[in-house]
Amino acid sequence: MVEAVETMDGWYSLHDLRTIDWTSWKLASEAERKEAIDSLDQLIAKWEEVEEAGNGSQVLHKVVGQKADLIFMFLRPTMDELSDMETELNKSKMGEFLLPAHSYVSVVELSKYRPAKDGVDPETLPETQKRLKPILPKWEHICFYPMDRRRTGDENWYTLEKDERGKMLYEHSKTGRKYAGKVTQVITGSIGLDDWEWGVTLFAHEPLQFKKIVYEMRFDEVSSRYGEFGEFFVGNLLPREDIPNYLEV
Amino acid sequence: MVEAVETMDGWYSLHDLRTIDWTSWKLASEAERKEAIDSLDQLIAKWEEVEEAGNGSQVLHKVVGQKADLIFMFLRPTMDELSDMETELNKSKMGEFLLPAHSYVSVVELSKYRPAKDGVDPETLPETQKRLKPILPKWEHICFYPMDRRRTGDENWYTLEKDERGKMLYEHSKTGRKYAGKVTQVITGSIGLDDWEWGVTLFAHEPLQFKKIVYEMRFDEVSSRYGEFGEFFVGNLLPREDIPNYLEV
Amino acid sequence: MVEAVETMDGWYSLHDLRTIDWTSWKLASEAERKEAIDSLDQLIAKWEEVEEAGNGSQVLHKVVGQKADLIFMFLRPTMDELSDMETELNKSKMGEFLLPAHSYVSVVELSKYRPAKDGVDPETLPETQKRLKPILPKWEHICFYPMDRRRTGDENWYTLEKDERGKMLYEHSKTGRKYAGKVTQVITGSIGLDDWEWGVTLFAHEPLQFKKIVYEMRFDEVSSRYGEFGEFFVGNLLPREDIPNYLEV
Amino acid sequence: MVEAVETMDGWYSLHDLRTIDWTSWKLASEAERKEAIDSLDQLIAKWEEVEEAGNGSQVLHKVVGQKADLIFMFLRPTMDELSDMETELNKSKMGEFLLPAHSYVSVVELSKYRPAKDGVDPETLPETQKRLKPILPKWEHICFYPMDRRRTGDENWYTLEKDERGKMLYEHSKTGRKYAGKVTQVITGSIGLDDWEWGVTLFAHEPLQFKKIVYEMRFDEVSSRYGEFGEFFVGNLLPREDIPNYLEV
Amino acid sequence: MVEAVETMDGWYSLHDLRTIDWTSWKLASEAERKEAIDSLDQLIAKWEEVEEAGNGSQVLHKVVGQKADLIFMFLRPTMDELSDMETELNKSKMGEFLLPAHSYVSVVELSKYRPAKDGVDPETLPETQKRLKPILPKWEHICFYPMDRRRTGDENWYTLEKDERGKMLYEHSKTGRKYAGKVTQVITGSIGLDDWEWGVTLFAHEPLQFKKIVYEMRFDEVSSRYGEFGEFFVGNLLPREDIPNYLEV
Repeated sequence: MVEAVETMDGWYSLHDLRTIDWTSWKLASEAERKEAIDSLDQLIAKWEEVEEAGNGSQVLHKVVGQKADLIFMFLRPTMDELSDMETELNKSKMGEFLLPAHSYVSVVELSKYRPAKDGVDPETLPETQKRLKPILPKWEHICFYPMDRRRTGDENWYTLEKDERGKMLYEHSKTGRKYAGKVTQVITGSIGLDDWEWGVTLFAHEPLQFKKIVYEMRFDEVSSRYGEFGEFFVGNLLPREDIPNYLEV
Repeated sequence: MVEAVETMDGWYSLHDLRTIDWTSWKLASEAERKEAIDSLDQLIAKWEEVEEAGNGSQVLHKVVGQKADLIFMFLRPTMDELSDMETELNKSKMGEFLLPAHSYVSVVELSKYRPAKDGVDPETLPETQKRLKPILPKWEHICFYPMDRRRTGDENWYTLEKDERGKMLYEHSKTGRKYAGKVTQVITGSIGLDDWEWGVTLFAHEPLQFKKIVYEMRFDEVSSRYGEFGEFFVGNLLPREDIPNYLEV
Repeated sequence: MVEAVETMDGWYSLHDLRTIDWTSWKLASEAERKEAIDSLDQLIAKWEEVEEAGNGSQVLHKVVGQKADLIFMFLRPTMDELSDMETELNKSKMGEFLLPAHSYVSVVELSKYRPAKDGVDPETLPETQKRLKPILPKWEHICFYPMDRRRTGDENWYTLEKDERGKMLYEHSKTGRKYAGKVTQVITGSIGLDDWEWGVTLFAHEPLQFKKIVYEMRFDEVSSRYGEFGEFFVGNLLPREDIPNYLEV
Repeated sequence: MVEAVETMDGWYSLHDLRTIDWTSWKLASEAERKEAIDSLDQLIAKWEEVEEAGNGSQVLHKVVGQKADLIFMFLRPTMDELSDMETELNKSKMGEFLLPAHSYVSVVELSKYRPAKDGVDPETLPETQKRLKPILPKWEHICFYPMDRRRTGDENWYTLEKDERGKMLYEHSKTGRKYAGKVTQVITGSIGLDDWEWGVTLFAHEPLQFKKIVYEMRFDEVSSRYGEFGEFFVGNLLPREDIPNYLEV
Repeated sequence: MVEAVETMDGWYSLHDLRTIDWTSWKLASEAERKEAIDSLDQLIAKWEEVEEAGNGSQVLHKVVGQKADLIFMFLRPTMDELSDMETELNKSKMGEFLLPAHSYVSVVELSKYRPAKDGVDPETLPETQKRLKPILPKWEHICFYPMDRRRTGDENWYTLEKDERGKMLYEHSKTGRKYAGKVTQVITGSIGLDDWEWGVTLFAHEPLQFKKIVYEMRFDEVSSRYGEFGEFFVGNLLPREDIPNYLEV
């Protein structure tokens, strides 16, 4: 009987990707476009208040390539709030010009592979709480991809003993730590919530760092033998004040 | 010659997922939208009467993310009734604003891995009948996913002896029982009816419980070595009385 | 050098699945809808004459779930006739409201794993001819799915000796025979004609029998080790006289 | 170091599959439909002149089933000519009613597994040249499918010695030769040009022969252990003079 | 602990594939079409100035087959510039007639499998810089495909020692060098940026060379045992001055 590992879970997460219907956008009147931009601006203003109050966080980036045009990442204490945000966006004037492209549902997660230190449950520590309910960095670039742990024949993460898994993840974390200051990582768990087991969201000032960290990590045993990866989405920050210019036609 | 296991089968099941065409919805007149909402309300009223009479059951949730907007789960004694419900929805005024997103056809199923106790066929027991023809809980959250048992090389569920299968499923059920009160599970069989072998529908008051139970179960041998999983859909309850508000634009 | 097995081949087969464009259907005038229903009725009348003359057969069912709304199964002596039927349907008034959903091209097939008995070629027997050119039963429910025989590593149907294959198929047929009167099966071969190697079409009075037979057969070695299965479609009979009612809006 | 085999390469090939937009077609005026049919007829007339001059070849069939309605197969000495033909079709009046369905880019190919006989390079022989620049037979039926040679573990075509490959292909060719007069085969190579490694195009007077030859060949080791197959498309010849009748609505 | 290899990274790359909406294009007025062609011409003029200043490069080809009509390949020092180019194209008049077809995000990459020679970091050499920031050849034909290195069981690139990888890649490069003057190759890395690990872009005067080089390379161990390949796109050069003629209807 293989033992699972307890997880610490924080805010719920929704990655919401949209494609702009540029043809409709250009056909719309200037007044309509203004109304649409205003409606998005108002939503963002509302969301920013939530973030300032420490009750959630979000970022918005322009996706590079044709997988989508916009990627919103939303964090909130409840799934209902995420659902409401999505519905609000759908109902907004801006929503009339946004085609669905992709989405991902998960929850911020930390693993408890290490035993409690001095009997202190790490989940109670302020620094853990901060990582479970993170204010997302407004860095220039985002990278999002989902992943699984392999379960085939001799390469089966879920039949490994807890110690082995912990050791491999520890080695993996050392690779990650080399990128401190260059890459910020948010891990969200999605077993039972979406099609892959985990989501990885990376933030960087320079997109080359996404390639460097993911490449280097691919040689860690936990990735080379147990990692399966889905679609990758990369984007450039779209600050609220730049939206009118981005949408100007 | 490997022996199969007899199954006990109850109500037929249809998961019916729809995407709201928000653009058409907003373009419609207020009168049309009212007519649409009323048409859905009337269908639900009719369905509720069936449920009250013990002749079927259903629930409606809002899907989180862009895989769909609504998930209906319908249970009825016959496949014809399910087909009629689907057609009624298609023909309704509301149907004009609902795009097909996904569906799943199956039948509520219990396995008879255990021999009859004291010569009593478990299928005749009232508690079994209640599980085969369940009134679906109106809990806040739903999770639906399809699954297969693996059939490759040494990991082949269908070449295992019945005893081995029964033992693994028994261990698995113990994991499930830990979540009593937190997660309600409805298993539906779909071999010969849809693309995967089984459907799993979970209900919870808190969506985090979906992640916890599915994660923990993944370490059970029956999942780690024999489980293959499809798409996951999660949703928040949409009570009948909240529909007008949800659709208000 | 592994020996193939000669097949006996009968009528060509086309499974033709269509989705009704309900929105256009409702937007059409009553006169147009009547014209469309009449056009379908006339096609079916014509097809029925062919069936009565013993020159082909067909059935029409409503598909359960959102994979399609209608499934036509057509059998004819030539591929040209199938192509003409499809074109006629496309050109008909009804065709304007039918979106393509799926199709499958194959030919009714029986295998000659058994040697000729008393020197009589089984293909010449009346009962064989009847099975190669079958009048499809107008039973309440249909189930269609395509399948392959596996060709990987040690599980390779095509490197097995003919005797081994024959033995496994004989065991398999015994499972099938248990369902006599409950399930009627039509096997069509599609190697060289469509994406899978065979099509299986089942007819039953009760859809639960589809689940029972396919589940039980999955434990036969020919399925558990050598079967790969595609999409499953199930439907409820749509008799000609019920079409106006089904399409009434 | 495994040795590749030199190939002899002939005309470039484009399989171009289109779906007719029957709804638009019926909505068009009779004059527009006539103009469209004429535009296609003129293109074919032009193409036939090229074929008569020995500078290329082409055939047109109606696809059976819903994967497409029409399949054009074009052969030309240069890729530019293929691209021009595709563009001409897109720009033609008929093109307004043809939706893209599928395409395949390749080049007619023969393998040089046998050493030069008496020092004569087989590529210089007139019969080889005729096979590399073939006039496609206007037989009643076409079958097209793409394929790969497997590259996994012990079943890796590309790690086999040249002699072994040559021997298996020689055995395979003997199966093919049994169908002389019944099936004409054109092999086109697409490594570096499209998603699969080879395309196989078969022509027959009777579509059952496609099933017979592909079935029998599947037991040849080169297929059973090293063949991976894609989608299959079958069609019935659409002679130029039958086009108006086929498109009559 | 397996050691990764440092990469040298140059300009960011975006492959942007578009399908022309020929029906809308033909419906547009001549004035609109002229405006659209002019808008594309002006963008290209601007891009050419960037290339002349050594700050980026680009090429445009017509895709053969129905995967797309146009393939743009853009190279720029920053991801922001690529994003801006894509947005500009979307907003342009021409953009109204271009449907999204496919895209790929990567960065020009060279591997440092060889140690520094005489203590000189190869990245500092002018010839290396030229390869990292290449002016794309305006050759007649392009071929683009993405690829992965395999990570399954005994065929796992990421568990091989650096020396083994370097040796296999060196052998591979020798195959490539045979095509000097016939094929120009640009390798771009996309781990962490897009769905595959690398992109390969080939340029040739004759498209047959794409088939020859990819076929021959498939027998190199690095491909036969460790290569996984995605979709292949081939195209014919579309020089700026030929665009009006190509789009003439």
